[in-house]
Amino acid sequence: MGLASQDNLQISGLTDNMDKKYKSLLRNRFQKDVDKNVLKYVASVPFDWRLYKYDIAGSIAHVNMLKKQQIIPEKDANLIVSGLKIIEKEIDKEQFDFKPELEDIHMNLENRLFEIIGNAAGTMHTARSRNDQVSLDMRLYLRDAIKNTVQLIKNLQHTVVEIADNNNSVVMPGYTHLQQAQPILFAHHLLAYFEMFQRDIERFQNSLQRVNILPLGSGAMAGITFQIDRDFLARELGFERVSNNSIDAVSDRDFVIEYEAAAAITMMHLSRLAEEIILWSSTEFGFVELDDSFTTSSSIMPQKKNPDVAELARAKTGRIYGNLISLLTIMKGLPLAYNRDLQEDKPGLFDTVDTLLASLEVFTSMIKTMKVNADRMLSVMSNTYILATDIADYLVEKGLPFREAHEVVSKIVYYAVSSGKNFEELSLEEYQRFSPIFDKNVYHITLESSLARRNMHGGTAPPQVKEAIIRAKQLVGKRQCKKNG
Amino acid sequence: MGLASQDNLQISGLTDNMDKKYKSLLRNRFQKDVDKNVLKYVASVPFDWRLYKYDIAGSIAHVNMLKKQQIIPEKDANLIVSGLKIIEKEIDKEQFDFKPELEDIHMNLENRLFEIIGNAAGTMHTARSRNDQVSLDMRLYLRDAIKNTVQLIKNLQHTVVEIADNNNSVVMPGYTHLQQAQPILFAHHLLAYFEMFQRDIERFQNSLQRVNILPLGSGAMAGITFQIDRDFLARELGFERVSNNSIDAVSDRDFVIEYEAAAAITMMHLSRLAEEIILWSSTEFGFVELDDSFTTSSSIMPQKKNPDVAELARAKTGRIYGNLISLLTIMKGLPLAYNRDLQEDKPGLFDTVDTLLASLEVFTSMIKTMKVNADRMLSVMSNTYILATDIADYLVEKGLPFREAHEVVSKIVYYAVSSGKNFEELSLEEYQRFSPIFDKNVYHITLESSLARRNMHGGTAPPQVKEAIIRAKQLVGKRQCKKNG
Amino acid sequence: MGLASQDNLQISGLTDNMDKKYKSLLRNRFQKDVDKNVLKYVASVPFDWRLYKYDIAGSIAHVNMLKKQQIIPEKDANLIVSGLKIIEKEIDKEQFDFKPELEDIHMNLENRLFEIIGNAAGTMHTARSRNDQVSLDMRLYLRDAIKNTVQLIKNLQHTVVEIADNNNSVVMPGYTHLQQAQPILFAHHLLAYFEMFQRDIERFQNSLQRVNILPLGSGAMAGITFQIDRDFLARELGFERVSNNSIDAVSDRDFVIEYEAAAAITMMHLSRLAEEIILWSSTEFGFVELDDSFTTSSSIMPQKKNPDVAELARAKTGRIYGNLISLLTIMKGLPLAYNRDLQEDKPGLFDTVDTLLASLEVFTSMIKTMKVNADRMLSVMSNTYILATDIADYLVEKGLPFREAHEVVSKIVYYAVSSGKNFEELSLEEYQRFSPIFDKNVYHITLESSLARRNMHGGTAPPQVKEAIIRAKQLVGKRQCKKNG
Amino acid sequence: MGLASQDNLQISGLTDNMDKKYKSLLRNRFQKDVDKNVLKYVASVPFDWRLYKYDIAGSIAHVNMLKKQQIIPEKDANLIVSGLKIIEKEIDKEQFDFKPELEDIHMNLENRLFEIIGNAAGTMHTARSRNDQVSLDMRLYLRDAIKNTVQLIKNLQHTVVEIADNNNSVVMPGYTHLQQAQPILFAHHLLAYFEMFQRDIERFQNSLQRVNILPLGSGAMAGITFQIDRDFLARELGFERVSNNSIDAVSDRDFVIEYEAAAAITMMHLSRLAEEIILWSSTEFGFVELDDSFTTSSSIMPQKKNPDVAELARAKTGRIYGNLISLLTIMKGLPLAYNRDLQEDKPGLFDTVDTLLASLEVFTSMIKTMKVNADRMLSVMSNTYILATDIADYLVEKGLPFREAHEVVSKIVYYAVSSGKNFEELSLEEYQRFSPIFDKNVYHITLESSLARRNMHGGTAPPQVKEAIIRAKQLVGKRQCKKNG
Repeated sequence: MGLASQDNLQISGLTDNMDKKYKSLLRNRFQKDVDKNVLKYVASVPFDWRLYKYDIAGSIAHVNMLKKQQIIPEKDANLIVSGLKIIEKEIDKEQFDFKPELEDIHMNLENRLFEIIGNAAGTMHTARSRNDQVSLDMRLYLRDAIKNTVQLIKNLQHTVVEIADNNNSVVMPGYTHLQQAQPILFAHHLLAYFEMFQRDIERFQNSLQRVNILPLGSGAMAGITFQIDRDFLARELGFERVSNNSIDAVSDRDFVIEYEAAAAITMMHLSRLAEEIILWSSTEFGFVELDDSFTTSSSIMPQKKNPDVAELARAKTGRIYGNLISLLTIMKGLPLAYNRDLQEDKPGLFDTVDTLLASLEVFTSMIKTMKVNADRMLSVMSNTYILATDIADYLVEKGLPFREAHEVVSKIVYYAVSSGKNFEELSLEEYQRFSPIFDKNVYHITLESSLARRNMHGGTAPPQVKEAIIRAKQLVGKRQCKKNG
Repeated sequence: MGLASQDNLQISGLTDNMDKKYKSLLRNRFQKDVDKNVLKYVASVPFDWRLYKYDIAGSIAHVNMLKKQQIIPEKDANLIVSGLKIIEKEIDKEQFDFKPELEDIHMNLENRLFEIIGNAAGTMHTARSRNDQVSLDMRLYLRDAIKNTVQLIKNLQHTVVEIADNNNSVVMPGYTHLQQAQPILFAHHLLAYFEMFQRDIERFQNSLQRVNILPLGSGAMAGITFQIDRDFLARELGFERVSNNSIDAVSDRDFVIEYEAAAAITMMHLSRLAEEIILWSSTEFGFVELDDSFTTSSSIMPQKKNPDVAELARAKTGRIYGNLISLLTIMKGLPLAYNRDLQEDKPGLFDTVDTLLASLEVFTSMIKTMKVNADRMLSVMSNTYILATDIADYLVEKGLPFREAHEVVSKIVYYAVSSGKNFEELSLEEYQRFSPIFDKNVYHITLESSLARRNMHGGTAPPQVKEAIIRAKQLVGKRQCKKNG
Repeated sequence: MGLASQDNLQISGLTDNMDKKYKSLLRNRFQKDVDKNVLKYVASVPFDWRLYKYDIAGSIAHVNMLKKQQIIPEKDANLIVSGLKIIEKEIDKEQFDFKPELEDIHMNLENRLFEIIGNAAGTMHTARSRNDQVSLDMRLYLRDAIKNTVQLIKNLQHTVVEIADNNNSVVMPGYTHLQQAQPILFAHHLLAYFEMFQRDIERFQNSLQRVNILPLGSGAMAGITFQIDRDFLARELGFERVSNNSIDAVSDRDFVIEYEAAAAITMMHLSRLAEEIILWSSTEFGFVELDDSFTTSSSIMPQKKNPDVAELARAKTGRIYGNLISLLTIMKGLPLAYNRDLQEDKPGLFDTVDTLLASLEVFTSMIKTMKVNADRMLSVMSNTYILATDIADYLVEKGLPFREAHEVVSKIVYYAVSSGKNFEELSLEEYQRFSPIFDKNVYHITLESSLARRNMHGGTAPPQVKEAIIRAKQLVGKRQCKKNG
Repeated sequence: MGLASQDNLQISGLTDNMDKKYKSLLRNRFQKDVDKNVLKYVASVPFDWRLYKYDIAGSIAHVNMLKKQQIIPEKDANLIVSGLKIIEKEIDKEQFDFKPELEDIHMNLENRLFEIIGNAAGTMHTARSRNDQVSLDMRLYLRDAIKNTVQLIKNLQHTVVEIADNNNSVVMPGYTHLQQAQPILFAHHLLAYFEMFQRDIERFQNSLQRVNILPLGSGAMAGITFQIDRDFLARELGFERVSNNSIDAVSDRDFVIEYEAAAAITMMHLSRLAEEIILWSSTEFGFVELDDSFTTSSSIMPQKKNPDVAELARAKTGRIYGNLISLLTIMKGLPLAYNRDLQEDKPGLFDTVDTLLASLEVFTSMIKTMKVNADRMLSVMSNTYILATDIADYLVEKGLPFREAHEVVSKIVYYAVSSGKNFEELSLEEYQRFSPIFDKNVYHITLESSLARRNMHGGTAPPQVKEAIIRAKQLVGKRQCKKNG
């Protein structure tokens, strides 16, 4: 079978003849063997195997520290380090046989280490508990995930700015309540997303200060009885500081929740863009055409060009929300310190990271190849009263208080709708029936004038949008737009 | 590598030399090939392959109907049916090569059918769309899932009753606010869970009436132009009735949400039992001892007996909640009819079904082997005032209004706490200081009398609990307690 | 100030000179007064006052039972009943002074009863605890809420059918992926919602069997020591049966969650209709026009007609989801039996009931007055290839296997798009270039023929839709379409 | 009636004789009056009246800017400012009559301004839309809410440190999986919460950089046509900078979500502390006794001391989660720019802020008055094997590899449990049966030695905890521990 999913693990070795030699590794003081259903229920290696690089890096740093502190013999330490490097390569090459009966990634690695280097492996776990070890692994994983996330958001921003720049004179209706409101530059609309993504980056970066802290040295929950050097570990592993309280260090999953909350907001932003792309791709709007490679047609309706990628991204937002609420629920009311419940932080986090990164990537490609129909955007404004605000503002500038101007224009719109006319089709005499202030300058109110007059920082006037594009480019330009890692 | 998880699909065949011959199967009218990232993003076969048996059963019924209605040639129909049976066996034996570039289970099966039977395969999809097809598959899947769920809940109920019966004279403190409140039978406490699980069963069974409806014949969304026989299909596939509206049929996922909501409530019940088992397993409570096979000790603290299974079940409750909120979010505000968003119903549902079934199974085994410490339950009541209610009721029966009786007992408790005495250590004279009504019968108030007097339907008096056990046994006995399927 | 909200309670009487006389009512054995912040934090009367009618009805039944069983003197019982009726009128007339320092509705009523009838009030709470009392109140409240909900859904269904009937020849494009897919009757589209609402009704009605159960007699958690008659209570209060387990009865909130889950699905359905109304009200779609009374214009853009009601309903869906997840989270991992946490079930439930009922009501009025633009619906189909399926089916009937027919039509659509032609503008020769099977009957494929041929149960053919309307009317007609209560 | 809640608004003035004079203020160009149910459905003033101070402050700054820029006459501007100040006092004194038919706080204020100063009021809304106005109000509100939240967290931290300091020699069992794991200082345990709260503060402070941005000047969505001075506004209102994109500014609610997400994490922390306090207050644990003013007894069980405040805080966590998921759901898939859906951000946010602040306050008082039972904490460790880790570490230091040492201790524990002995009751000979390495120093392993040896940064050794207290005090001391507000 070509595929295997989480629910269909091709678990090797969950057999009764499991090697007795390694049984002592299992953390069971108990006389009975563990039930197979139980093993399947509690085993985390089906998902936490992904942490292997981080677990190995952490173990190497730990062992080097133990050696430096003369807590374990130099010879043992060196053996362990070389063994771990062998194991890493085995996993890289998919030649490693994960054993669910060893439950988690940590025991799988240690067990293999015993096979390779013998009893020296038994010293690796000195002055450490799986409670601080797994927190370490998660923090190393998340530090990388945050870096990758930020980079992919930047790439998406880069593309957003590019499209804005390439279409910097395209005019479209701006909407509120999905009703045409005021004319805007398409570029201005796109740059709204640039701002959202910028906040997303900030949020992920803010969270780093709570991720990048060394938990190792907290032991099971009370600290370590050996003369360890936590600062050495922090330096080796690139952490900004060591954790302040061992109990907190092993029971804290705030940093995972923070990532999931930030991811939820980012996906929400993508879902808004997805919704717009779906709307814009409809016959009725017709503002954009997605490239064939990002759509599908139907099995039964060959004429259609379905925006599947956008739809799926919109839907996956629900999934990201679900993962967030899941972890918040898990953590609610848990007494200190470590509880096995914490193991359930991983499936949701990994799913969130994978989904977010994939969504960012496909969005970047999708919008990059999207065709913008400037003509259609213009034509949908032809029979609407999208310049009503401008007429009201014109009256205000001629001295009418805002609320009166607004009332006058309301009446004109009502009259125009009833008589089936556009603004430009109204005669000056008709205008003046509603207010004597009108003069022929009212005919100078156009899409162009409307745009041009919104000329303040953040407004849609072409010079403002041009500046915004420059600012955005500089912001994006400061960074390398390549995914690291 | 021995394990693969959802994020690490061993996808075969996502290659550039994908057979041109089957390209026409892909639902793309478009000129460009679809981007690989896009394929990965939109492909559902990594999870919907699980529907293969249902998809094949549905296709066989469909093709038999097409044959009967003379919509396709008998010869083609027979070929298709035999081809599908071959494919089913291939998948059963894990000899089928799922191709993500064919996106979903439906196209994977049809593509293979072409390979086996040639062009006759091209008639299978007549008078059908993937929109009604996938709804059919999901309904067939869920019908089975509900049956399995109900059976596993019944098994758990069976075990609950057994334990209650085996411990039918064990007395324990009943709690409100985690404070000792009134003495109860341990069996009575357990049977509270029996009631919860009974409601769970009802809920799943209620939902069946909205699951067991044939959607096939709805086509893409407007219905079918051929002379199909939907009633025949319904009979063949065991549905109670056909759906009433083609648009609703392809856009409805209520039945999935209903399962997830019912599962959330069931898991909530398990989480309460889990919490109690965790509490009871602590040194401080000491009410039960879990069998070694359901606990682990720590890597660093060999003396511990951690109730990991209960902790994980408690945690997985969050996951089930997350899946529910995820699908509700996905469905919110979706215009009719089918949208690709609906594809995202599957990962969450499959995860919920798997998690719920596994949790029910391990709980059944875990509590079956749990040792009950009756002595400890008794001893924790020795220095508490758990009979206070009974003393108040004694006063009421002697004529004091309830509120006054309550006040008198409050004062006695306060006095007793201050002077470090139990109720039995108070002299009659001391009692009478608080109310002259007291006589020596106050010393006849015991744990046993307290239990015995709560002798109404639903109460904890031993005869009531005995009857409750009999009722429960009858309810459970009506059914076969074997998992079907 | 004319308004007060939950956060701005005009709490009377939270004063230090609270009447000593009623202090004994407070459930505090303790020497210190409770802190004001604490009182505010724990008091439920700001929201549970809404239960007063149910609490009074329950107390009257309870006292009548106590009288019948000779547990309290007849004289006292009669005094209590008459006192409670006085209190009910006081509250009806808004002449009752709720006191937060008495914490909840139960104590507020009992306290006032003392004021009115004196010490006889002290016997009312005999053989009862607030734990079973509040469960009783909630069940009575919810039974009514379910009735009202079902009635309002029926009213909405009634309106849906009416509109369908009044517009039974209007043709619109059917959508999948928000792309025009196949022509349908507008009535057929509307009736999809009829089906959703029908399921909603079923769901609420199913839940009644778990709501309509008498919890009274469960006491604090272990049952009652007096010779009570629970069946009498059940009959008096209209319950189907009495609860089976006292511990379960006081710790169960499944019935609240079930309402919230059913409400979430119903609101999800409304959110889909809301989304469509918002889309259809846009200039770009233009399918419907909402009545002025259901829209607003902007403070700054007088030309707009914002579908605020639909937007708010869409948004309030989130709120209903939030309330569901809130209660699920509250219940997770709670040990038996009653915990104060359960008090937090109320704010969410009340909010959900109010929001759902209000949403159903405004939707009924909103769609009733909505203007349908049949012409616009037709015209948006003029340049699309919405009949592609029909052409493919035409080829299949002429002998081409489905997959080949689909491929042929795909190519034609691609050709037609490239050459800027509609189907009707293609010559027969052009058609035949793609398949020699084509004959001039291809020009008989029209919107009308497309509709007419989807003539199976559930399809969009006019006779089918007519029948569906008749069925729906009968279903709705069986009931009185007036809100009760 | 003394109380009114959100669902029972004593709405004044929703009458048919609503003053025609102010009707023009309503944003309705439409001919029909709005339905009362609709008004009730769409009106936000029942909750957004709370923004009045912020709305007035914003309007004053706006009007001053309009005056400075000579957009409106100085005379009008001065009138408006003085009128607004009068209104603010009216509301402060609860002498303001909010009118739901004017829908929101903005129109209520403007309408009253017309009454007070006449037509000059009509110029206030020049160069502004309610879309940017409400964003401004929310940001000003949230800026204050964040300040208050941070201050209350600091107060709680202050109390935590105080208790830690006052009990700095109390030893308790540390738990993992709710099993006794290793001895710790009670102070060390408490300081774990100090760390959590410190992260909470950081998170709220991080979010400020995304809150403290001026949206005014964005108009309805496209910017403003007048020559406004946004920098002046930003300075006047204390914002760090102006928003960069008008479309983003009116459609962004990230800052609300961020508060709700941070609040969810903080409440989760409180829920963990709540859970522990509930556990510790049980007879079985008996570690703490809550002050009478923070508990209640039962109506039927006077002996109990229920930790209601802790239970409610635990439950309210669900509510805070619900509000978060609610807003995330609301925002999902919303097209730009402003939609009425955004109005629904407020009820949830206000509820979250109120609930969080109240919870922080009651927790501070509750733990401050909590009695710590040091003796009980010691005594529960007397028959457990809590020093097992230390014995294993002793063996490691004597040369045994960690895994072997762990295995030896496992066997000893198993032996000790079977023979009913504590560690201290085992003879040296018995120890040596498991490993010859043991010498009599094994008897020097005590609770004190165990604590003392965990002497690294973050460990539970008394000198480390003392330093941690000093650090915490310095951190807390830097700030004023008074609520500003």
